[in-house]
Amino acid sequence: MSIHTLPFGNLIEIDRNSALPVFRQVANGLICLIRNGKIRPGYQLPPSRLMASELKLNRTTIVAAYDELSAQGWLEVTERRGVFVSKRLPGVSPRSFQADTEEEGLPGPSFYRRITERPPVSPELKPFDLMINDGYPDQRIAPLGAIFNHYKTLANRAYLHGQLMYGNAGSLSLRRELAVFLSQTRALNIQAENVLVTHGAQLAIFTAASMIIKPGSTVIVAELNYVLAGKLFEHLGARLIKVKVDEEGIDVDAVEEICKKSRPALLYVIPHHHHPTTVTLSAGRRVKLLEIIRRYQLPVIEDDYDYDFHYDNSPILPLASADHNGLVMYVGSISKTLAPTIRLGYLIGGSDFIWQASRLKQLAEIRGDVLFEESVAQLFNTGDMQRHIRRSVKIYKQRRDQFCDSLKSLGSDFARFVSPQGGMAVWVTFPEGYSLPQLSKRLAGKGIYMNEGSLYRYSPDINGARLGFASLNPDEMSKFFEGFRLSL
Amino acid sequence: MSIHTLPFGNLIEIDRNSALPVFRQVANGLICLIRNGKIRPGYQLPPSRLMASELKLNRTTIVAAYDELSAQGWLEVTERRGVFVSKRLPGVSPRSFQADTEEEGLPGPSFYRRITERPPVSPELKPFDLMINDGYPDQRIAPLGAIFNHYKTLANRAYLHGQLMYGNAGSLSLRRELAVFLSQTRALNIQAENVLVTHGAQLAIFTAASMIIKPGSTVIVAELNYVLAGKLFEHLGARLIKVKVDEEGIDVDAVEEICKKSRPALLYVIPHHHHPTTVTLSAGRRVKLLEIIRRYQLPVIEDDYDYDFHYDNSPILPLASADHNGLVMYVGSISKTLAPTIRLGYLIGGSDFIWQASRLKQLAEIRGDVLFEESVAQLFNTGDMQRHIRRSVKIYKQRRDQFCDSLKSLGSDFARFVSPQGGMAVWVTFPEGYSLPQLSKRLAGKGIYMNEGSLYRYSPDINGARLGFASLNPDEMSKFFEGFRLSL
Repeated sequence: MSIHTLPFGNLIEIDRNSALPVFRQVANGLICLIRNGKIRPGYQLPPSRLMASELKLNRTTIVAAYDELSAQGWLEVTERRGVFVSKRLPGVSPRSFQADTEEEGLPGPSFYRRITERPPVSPELKPFDLMINDGYPDQRIAPLGAIFNHYKTLANRAYLHGQLMYGNAGSLSLRRELAVFLSQTRALNIQAENVLVTHGAQLAIFTAASMIIKPGSTVIVAELNYVLAGKLFEHLGARLIKVKVDEEGIDVDAVEEICKKSRPALLYVIPHHHHPTTVTLSAGRRVKLLEIIRRYQLPVIEDDYDYDFHYDNSPILPLASADHNGLVMYVGSISKTLAPTIRLGYLIGGSDFIWQASRLKQLAEIRGDVLFEESVAQLFNTGDMQRHIRRSVKIYKQRRDQFCDSLKSLGSDFARFVSPQGGMAVWVTFPEGYSLPQLSKRLAGKGIYMNEGSLYRYSPDINGARLGFASLNPDEMSKFFEGFRLSL
Repeated sequence: MSIHTLPFGNLIEIDRNSALPVFRQVANGLICLIRNGKIRPGYQLPPSRLMASELKLNRTTIVAAYDELSAQGWLEVTERRGVFVSKRLPGVSPRSFQADTEEEGLPGPSFYRRITERPPVSPELKPFDLMINDGYPDQRIAPLGAIFNHYKTLANRAYLHGQLMYGNAGSLSLRRELAVFLSQTRALNIQAENVLVTHGAQLAIFTAASMIIKPGSTVIVAELNYVLAGKLFEHLGARLIKVKVDEEGIDVDAVEEICKKSRPALLYVIPHHHHPTTVTLSAGRRVKLLEIIRRYQLPVIEDDYDYDFHYDNSPILPLASADHNGLVMYVGSISKTLAPTIRLGYLIGGSDFIWQASRLKQLAEIRGDVLFEESVAQLFNTGDMQRHIRRSVKIYKQRRDQFCDSLKSLGSDFARFVSPQGGMAVWVTFPEGYSLPQLSKRLAGKGIYMNEGSLYRYSPDINGARLGFASLNPDEMSKFFEGFRLSL
């Protein structure tokens, strides 16, 4: 074997049982080597006879592979000089998926949307020792084992396609359990037909909004608002009208003024633990908002993502539990109850609305994992879920108190916050001019991740971040504040 | 205690540890009883003093509960006569979510879309002994146990939020494994940055289409087509232009004619096992279509939902594996490889397209279950997935042959079909005038579910159904044909 030939016999694996013809396997193997940089543009491949003996294959197979690669532009075959890896290969990215504009650093082709500016490729991120999130539950205290065990049992059943047939709106068991659970905890007056199970609460908001918004619709949102909801409404063609949020929640008088002048298609509101500020709508404003909804026939998406986690007072009842003639669509999350990886949310509405919404949802998601949904339904049915929530509330209340005590010790001039009545995060604002990106960088140097405020900096006078406390145990919290103090 | 009072002490459960105030628990308990039909409109409730002693509560608590229920419209309290369940309660459905129009049998209110006609409520479905689906894999042969075991290990890890941070386009491990797997099996020339993982292939089609289609766009589809794709494109505001499908796949000359006259935004094509007819695009047409794509710069969504299941010849390579300057977006499904409950699909495209698409996808799905995706990545990494596919192909080939032999024995005049080269279903057409709904009804009487063709009856001259064979073991298949013969 020639001295400058790679050990292709070891580099290219041939599977004689594969459905893929052997010559294509050779060709694919060579493509991988080129793309990995193992063989580079201009590299001379061994002649077919030599390659054949190296791979213990027939020579015609190698000729076929070289022909294929030459046709695809990977190789240049010259009658006299031999077979070379093409010098016109694309650089980093594969050619077939790379538009010419990309290589030249121009914006991509014009046939698709630009959603946002693409950031320059960021350097490889080191794993962090500790991460401060946006307000996630602690999956370590969730009864995930019980879910998997139930799932296994179901998956081994002889015949389960029955469950799959009726899954457009979610597993019937889970819809029933949710109807009971939400009736008991939120006084929602619902049955299974009012429940649509979705893969995450975002899909519930997406589905409800897609049912209501048309291009040109106007949607009322809070000025400081859950960012992805606003972006979604704009994507669907809506114009946003923003109202202020203060310590009592959104300004409902402003909502009424808008309704007097025009006919908005939708109000999006987060009555409990408003995102990002964590304020809760006051009882007085709640009553007034219900009047406005009824008087102006104003459709509402009520996003109540962590109702179950209230520590000081009892939560106010959702708008959806009052009389609203089907105008309030209610969104909740099981991801917030169990673990951020568990993607389950729900949309509650009138039975016709939910039926139509389940048809629309199919266009993005035909169904969820019905067995998984059945397993979570079982968790409600046995009471494990309810016990888990009670236990979590106790634990998270302690964590909130420890977190807020530590925050307070930093000095009220520096980190401003109001201890939240519920939820999993504290909204902290910093003095004007204090650089959160710099803070975030110093924390990263200590192995701690904290968002640098970019998630919330959609208004120039906001310099804050949501700091999630629920997923940090006491040790982790101490470690965070140790690093935090040294980084200020 | 009065003789006509229910045992409310047993019917209403009070949890003194609950965050919900006791009077609300009483109120919610009564709402449940009313909704369950245990107490009916007009029923007289015991006076507060009596109810208090029954529930072992303070009388003021009962008064507060009665007041709340009265305010909500559940009770009517008259100073003299007593406390009654309101006679104006909604019938079947809860009032707060019920629009007035619904009770009166009118279409719902006008603030939301009507997607399709809502069918009359169907009678409770009996469970079937046997179900013929649209072409699903058999989850009983899939290595689901390995996935769950890996998931459990990951879920118990002390700190996993790192994985959650980078999950917008899917778990990085799964994106990497898919890039390798698709390079090897489909000669796609891709890296992780070209892969977007989605919760089911429908979300991949949805995301790609939402990136490309604007209101007023034209989209080329096959006349007989995967229904939900066409509905999705129309929902996004597109006008469909339909081209014929014959035994060689879609009519690519017709595609060229359209491109000569106008500038379509998109072509949607299923080259392998076209849905519903299962025909595969011929090699000649594939080459011609690639020329058309390049000449007219025609963006394409290539839906290749069961490429891995080919039985007779080796599959043709996807359009996406050829040179197309980033114009072909490729969609595949892991649900079809493992089990219909496992919801995983992927979208392959240029790195800029995929980055932008991951931002757009967030509006409907922030992320998938990253731990689950990591567990499936592990399946690829260990080779378990590849072994599972090889094994499935062997089993499904046998099942296809048994199924087609049995079909043939029914007589070619009756059930017409072409044995599919791959995939999991046979497209069977029946004589004009033969009633599939009647057949489906007779089969249901024997405990067998079969779609009555409504899924495909979007053209008046189609009288066919896709019959899935892959999920039926030999016994089940014999049982099906036994019932089938008796029902014809």
